[in-house]
Amino acid sequence: MFITKNEEIRFIYEALVKAELPEEDAKIVSESLTDANLRGVDSHGINRLPLYAKRIQHGLIHNKSSIKILKEDMVSAVIDAGHAMGQVAGKIGMELAIEKASKNTLGMVVVGNSSHFGAAAYYSKMASSKGLIGITASNVSPLMPPTGGVGKILGNNPICISAPAGKYGEITTDMAMSNVAYGKILNADVANKPIPLGWGVDKDGNPTTDPKDVLNGGFLLPVGGPKGYGLALMIEVLTSVLANSPVSKEIKPMSDLNAPQIISHTFIAINIKSLIDSDTYNERVETLLGYIKNCTKAPGVNEILIPGDIENRSTEKRLREGIPVGDDLVNELNVLAAELGIEPLKGGAANV
Amino acid sequence: MFITKNEEIRFIYEALVKAELPEEDAKIVSESLTDANLRGVDSHGINRLPLYAKRIQHGLIHNKSSIKILKEDMVSAVIDAGHAMGQVAGKIGMELAIEKASKNTLGMVVVGNSSHFGAAAYYSKMASSKGLIGITASNVSPLMPPTGGVGKILGNNPICISAPAGKYGEITTDMAMSNVAYGKILNADVANKPIPLGWGVDKDGNPTTDPKDVLNGGFLLPVGGPKGYGLALMIEVLTSVLANSPVSKEIKPMSDLNAPQIISHTFIAINIKSLIDSDTYNERVETLLGYIKNCTKAPGVNEILIPGDIENRSTEKRLREGIPVGDDLVNELNVLAAELGIEPLKGGAANV
Repeated sequence: MFITKNEEIRFIYEALVKAELPEEDAKIVSESLTDANLRGVDSHGINRLPLYAKRIQHGLIHNKSSIKILKEDMVSAVIDAGHAMGQVAGKIGMELAIEKASKNTLGMVVVGNSSHFGAAAYYSKMASSKGLIGITASNVSPLMPPTGGVGKILGNNPICISAPAGKYGEITTDMAMSNVAYGKILNADVANKPIPLGWGVDKDGNPTTDPKDVLNGGFLLPVGGPKGYGLALMIEVLTSVLANSPVSKEIKPMSDLNAPQIISHTFIAINIKSLIDSDTYNERVETLLGYIKNCTKAPGVNEILIPGDIENRSTEKRLREGIPVGDDLVNELNVLAAELGIEPLKGGAANV
Repeated sequence: MFITKNEEIRFIYEALVKAELPEEDAKIVSESLTDANLRGVDSHGINRLPLYAKRIQHGLIHNKSSIKILKEDMVSAVIDAGHAMGQVAGKIGMELAIEKASKNTLGMVVVGNSSHFGAAAYYSKMASSKGLIGITASNVSPLMPPTGGVGKILGNNPICISAPAGKYGEITTDMAMSNVAYGKILNADVANKPIPLGWGVDKDGNPTTDPKDVLNGGFLLPVGGPKGYGLALMIEVLTSVLANSPVSKEIKPMSDLNAPQIISHTFIAINIKSLIDSDTYNERVETLLGYIKNCTKAPGVNEILIPGDIENRSTEKRLREGIPVGDDLVNELNVLAAELGIEPLKGGAANV
């Protein structure tokens, strides 16, 4: 089924309000999840709604009113999200970082006691769309071992950097610290294909090319081995350690309905205009991206992409043709709709 | 041959002064290169001296007095290094970032018109040794294609994050954005061994497992494919674009003795104490590192290492037993010593 942007926002908003999230919070979450689907990041879109609703109903998610600023100065703040939705705490966090950077060049806001906040790009792009550089990092529940280890010790903690890019709009790099997402292991298994060495290990920590070994009690590995391990660890320090929040195994999986997750995020904004005049910045970034776009292509490659190209093209296409939602997910969402007493998902492209 | 720390500093200092670098500049460079050798990062140590001396003699490196602050506010500065040694500009840059962060929570200093600055860890550790988090990034001459491309378009731009770590001292993650260093391709070729897919491509951009394909006109690849490409690109934006300095193919290789290289760096310091009290920070970071140190070990693994362990142990060992210098390098350095009229390298461990 294809649904329009407005239909996705409507559905998520109504579901969350029925699950007793305040309207203001529900609006933010519905916009953030829909943005991820528009960008083609379907792992962080409406598919998250059923579990979000369940967590709200289990009292594991609190309201915007629980969010408190614990410490603040001209360029920084520490926020206690009080178990609010990550999207709500995240938006407040990046808005505050942008406000501080707009006045005083830099802004850094550390958020503790939060929840899953969706795709990191949503927050970094808040900054780049206003002409600032935005950096967003978050921890997540642990799923990778450190290099040489066996067990779930570190999240594949994402970092996203988004920067204005003159005539190219913006460039946005959003990456998790695992070599690949869990979904890619699942896909290889379904397709009965081996996975490259380095994607994962089996339950005892042995390197493997069999996706089943990873799926049956094995673990994802950090990207680039010690490089991804080191960066995931540093993101943990920059988020949860600075926020005095749970680290590593103290963080519960989102599927655990007996406890809040307690996720931490950090948002940094850099006011470009304080460092360099806008015309010069645009000339430099356009020149850099020109070298990349005009690079000779490897055999079989039609175009060199810059970070964000795929997501921006998906947004254009899906605004025009609608957002695809798989049959299983449609069924799951319509069961939720019936439970909550809202209208089921209504199919249709934007131009129909 | 093994040499002591003091002998390495003596040799580099005298060579650079004879090459007509001012004494103050020579002192900084000698300490920075020796620190890299102590830490076992021999790719960024005394092996760089002959080319540094040549570049100074060719007038491509200027003095500390050329370094000028172009723009400055309470938390940021933009510095024109005026073709000074990267180590000299780097030390000034991070000192200024630390000074600003110590007073105002954050400090960010962008340095343009600089030169090769050695190992990034030297600067980040200046911050962590004072109780702050230090982040250092630099561009370097281009050597990797973007994902899907063929040609030298992006440097394997390093980023280093160093943070205080309570009873663990500090943790330092220092990584370049290529999958591996060029030296690892050379080593595989000498050992007549294949390289894993993803380390490099041949001269036409085809994936290869033959190190000779990479060495004969091929290219290193970014770590994690699009992830390393995206991060290398963002480091270019955060350094050279913000510094209004050369980007991508505009940057000359260090071996080109006809032109200054024009490298850019960015230094960020975060004053932890402004965000969280020191005891709480230490408890959190020690708890995190405890989970990692106590992780179950994979078969054949004796110990889980935290980032910086290898380098700190190397420093202890080399302070005790001396710094190893290979025969070829000893010969090259002694030719340089004869040319410049300084005493040749004198062997000896610290405790001899």
